[in-house]
Amino acid sequence: MFKSYMDIALKEAKAAADRGEVPVGAVVVSGKGEIISQASNRTRELSDPSAHAEMIAIRSACSVLGQERLNGYDLYVTLEPCAMCAGVISAARIKRLYYGASDDKSGGVEQGCCVFTHSQSHHAPEVYSGIGENEANDILKTFFEQLRNKSLVVQ
Amino acid sequence: MFKSYMDIALKEAKAAADRGEVPVGAVVVSGKGEIISQASNRTRELSDPSAHAEMIAIRSACSVLGQERLNGYDLYVTLEPCAMCAGVISAARIKRLYYGASDDKSGGVEQGCCVFTHSQSHHAPEVYSGIGENEANDILKTFFEQLRNKSLVVQ
Repeated sequence: MFKSYMDIALKEAKAAADRGEVPVGAVVVSGKGEIISQASNRTRELSDPSAHAEMIAIRSACSVLGQERLNGYDLYVTLEPCAMCAGVISAARIKRLYYGASDDKSGGVEQGCCVFTHSQSHHAPEVYSGIGENEANDILKTFFEQLRNKSLVVQ
Repeated sequence: MFKSYMDIALKEAKAAADRGEVPVGAVVVSGKGEIISQASNRTRELSDPSAHAEMIAIRSACSVLGQERLNGYDLYVTLEPCAMCAGVISAARIKRLYYGASDDKSGGVEQGCCVFTHSQSHHAPEVYSGIGENEANDILKTFFEQLRNKSLVVQ
């Protein structure tokens, strides 16, 4: 079941790549399995450094529900959240976090800041990683390869 | 000079308290000293767990300038930023961070996650703390005292 939600997040990631954004997608799902919001990266389009997929998905779900916390809701995201996004996941009280690929460069869940496990953490979701990892990594790899090729052509 | 910008952030914090929001204020200032944006906490009003003062101020400045990075811009905030806000400060490439009170509970700059100083950090602003600290603490203390008193009356 959770792979089908991740498939939607992966489609969002592909859509981001098509718009020239770093391909990451996210979905917020209720305890009953209803999709509340889905989003992908839009930092360039929106000129907004906070417009990561999971940040937009959480803001959108909160807006739809008219509440600033998402107790009992789950988040699916194709890439390990950064410190900023782990922070909003904690603030929103997300119940379960499912993510795909690890992010050695900016991940803040199981590496880097380890936002959920340091002594000051107020809320830690259950964390399940590696779901759709290969597909998420393939989408990212293809995107950055194409970006490098374009840069070479421009030079 | 920087105290006058912090005074504006403190006024924003007081305005947040008047609206029943946790009183934190923030200001983004250009290298030439021009105020680009100012904001205060609106998490309750907007049903948005990310709507901290510094998050709103940075998003607003980026929107005004039409760019997703604020290289050369400074941020003034009355309270030590949390991990989420430290994350967006880093992503936005803020040059200097001036903050007032330390936040033992949720601060992510000089305690907790230490977002700017861990090995994965891509950009760390210069950090100056303790500016307007007493006033920032007084505003927070008064707010939470009044909140406790109201809770007692309700009970």
